[in-house]
Amino acid sequence: MKTVSQYAQMIETSISALPLDKEPSGLYAPIRYALEAGGKRLRPVLTLSVADALCGNPDRAISQAIGIEMFHNFTLLHDDVMDKADVRRGRPTVHRKYSESTAILSGDAMLTIASGLIMKDCADSKLRSLLNLFNKTAMEIYEGQQYDMDFENRNDVTVDEYMEMIRLKTSVLLGCACEMGAVMADADTATCRAFYGYGEKLGLSFQLKDDWLDTYGDPETFGKSIGGDIANEKKTWLLITAMTEDKSGVLESVLGNNTTVEQKIEKVRGVYDSLNLSERCRLLEEKYAAEAIKCLNTINMSADARKFFNNLAFNSLKRIK
Amino acid sequence: MKTVSQYAQMIETSISALPLDKEPSGLYAPIRYALEAGGKRLRPVLTLSVADALCGNPDRAISQAIGIEMFHNFTLLHDDVMDKADVRRGRPTVHRKYSESTAILSGDAMLTIASGLIMKDCADSKLRSLLNLFNKTAMEIYEGQQYDMDFENRNDVTVDEYMEMIRLKTSVLLGCACEMGAVMADADTATCRAFYGYGEKLGLSFQLKDDWLDTYGDPETFGKSIGGDIANEKKTWLLITAMTEDKSGVLESVLGNNTTVEQKIEKVRGVYDSLNLSERCRLLEEKYAAEAIKCLNTINMSADARKFFNNLAFNSLKRIK
Repeated sequence: MKTVSQYAQMIETSISALPLDKEPSGLYAPIRYALEAGGKRLRPVLTLSVADALCGNPDRAISQAIGIEMFHNFTLLHDDVMDKADVRRGRPTVHRKYSESTAILSGDAMLTIASGLIMKDCADSKLRSLLNLFNKTAMEIYEGQQYDMDFENRNDVTVDEYMEMIRLKTSVLLGCACEMGAVMADADTATCRAFYGYGEKLGLSFQLKDDWLDTYGDPETFGKSIGGDIANEKKTWLLITAMTEDKSGVLESVLGNNTTVEQKIEKVRGVYDSLNLSERCRLLEEKYAAEAIKCLNTINMSADARKFFNNLAFNSLKRIK
Repeated sequence: MKTVSQYAQMIETSISALPLDKEPSGLYAPIRYALEAGGKRLRPVLTLSVADALCGNPDRAISQAIGIEMFHNFTLLHDDVMDKADVRRGRPTVHRKYSESTAILSGDAMLTIASGLIMKDCADSKLRSLLNLFNKTAMEIYEGQQYDMDFENRNDVTVDEYMEMIRLKTSVLLGCACEMGAVMADADTATCRAFYGYGEKLGLSFQLKDDWLDTYGDPETFGKSIGGDIANEKKTWLLITAMTEDKSGVLESVLGNNTTVEQKIEKVRGVYDSLNLSERCRLLEEKYAAEAIKCLNTINMSADARKFFNNLAFNSLKRIK
């Protein structure tokens, strides 16, 4: 096994080699811009590392890994238009730097390019299962995005509904990324599904970590300003749990009202603290990380590989403690 | 062979049977709304009729036909957002009836659903060639849309550039629709490519007809008000040819200036008439229709089938004479 950053470097090299320097540049240049913003490359790293763990050759899944990363960035382009987001990874979003039409059309092209990459360098016998997995995952992600938008207009969202929404919007793509690596390594169906489960549970754990970090993270290492979710009244696990359990009336008095951002953050955090939500969120996150690792129990792989996947789950937990 | 309206009826029946009545309805209901606006169903009719001509069983290509129609409607949803269009087929566009986010996200879902439909009910051995054709066509259509947007900001577009743009934006999907019908009928490569050529040339002919109708059509049968392209200074074959050839200075004096719409239409039509563009546009349209028909010369099919494809090209010509 290689390190996470070695797999990520393989991804960067392959992304740089994509044939995107062509006409019409109004279509292709924004794709390069979006892809070269970097990011952790978590999804394609999962694809490569799973393939490596199962067949010793991560290169066998490199096209599928890049396809997954291309797809992920397509969803970011369109989500940023829908959310009217100005900044992504410290740079102007595509629709701000170019135009909204560009973000829509270049995004569409990224989805089609992603589908082509997933078809590349794989046996014809695997094509249907790879593409069925990809299309099913894509539909679930659109459903998750729709639920996320629907939830912003509802005040009765339950924690179960929220967990199902983030499973769709975020986790299934991590499951898909893992399973594609297994399919490309010629793994049997049980192994493929076990790695899907690992990715899916990892995704739930990571999303809860993101929710937690936005409120409780260290401003110096988090990168974004703390409390943004509260300021925007974003329906995270923390806020939905608080809205369900809190009887103090504090939430009703500050949400949707003309409170200053600082006051809002302080008062809502007060409610979270009274319900011990910081600790409970971390425990839930740990629970999903443990479930992710458990998915791999029955899979035959080297101790080195098993340690790699354990570390992926555990290191993310360490980061926030 | 059946009639065009019989093939179109098969399409309507299959579209009605699509499983779109599900949650989240914010994602799926707009897809139903967009698909049920009707339209001529030209592309899927081509897919079914080509399959029928070659193997006597149009049903064999029904999933691919619906996939092509789904894809076409996806491009309309996104194009309407980019063009800020309010009305499509006499009804509010999806982004006006619902929201821009809906048009983007439901459009994305339509592209993924289209890909799934094209994979449906076909032998694994055909999957790669069908999807390569589909993905290549999709990329060309995005390129065509990008060139179309680029052209609106340029005053030096040549007629050749325009013809290449409409080939990409419009014609290749007709070629793809025809070729998919041939692939599903187990036709050999030469036959598949010949039908692609037929659809592609037909598309060029149809687009020139659309350009002509917008300026010279009969207001009673055209459905839209005449002169809209001139009013919007849309770069059609007529306007680009006039901008290239006219030395009178009339175009410069009215385009981009505060002339009334009526005056603009009258003066630009005067330039078109001085260059005999109405007749020349019809001749060019006939030339492409003849080229379309010529593509099928070497193909083995019944006289009945040959007549069907001839009529498709000739009837469209008759309509405007």
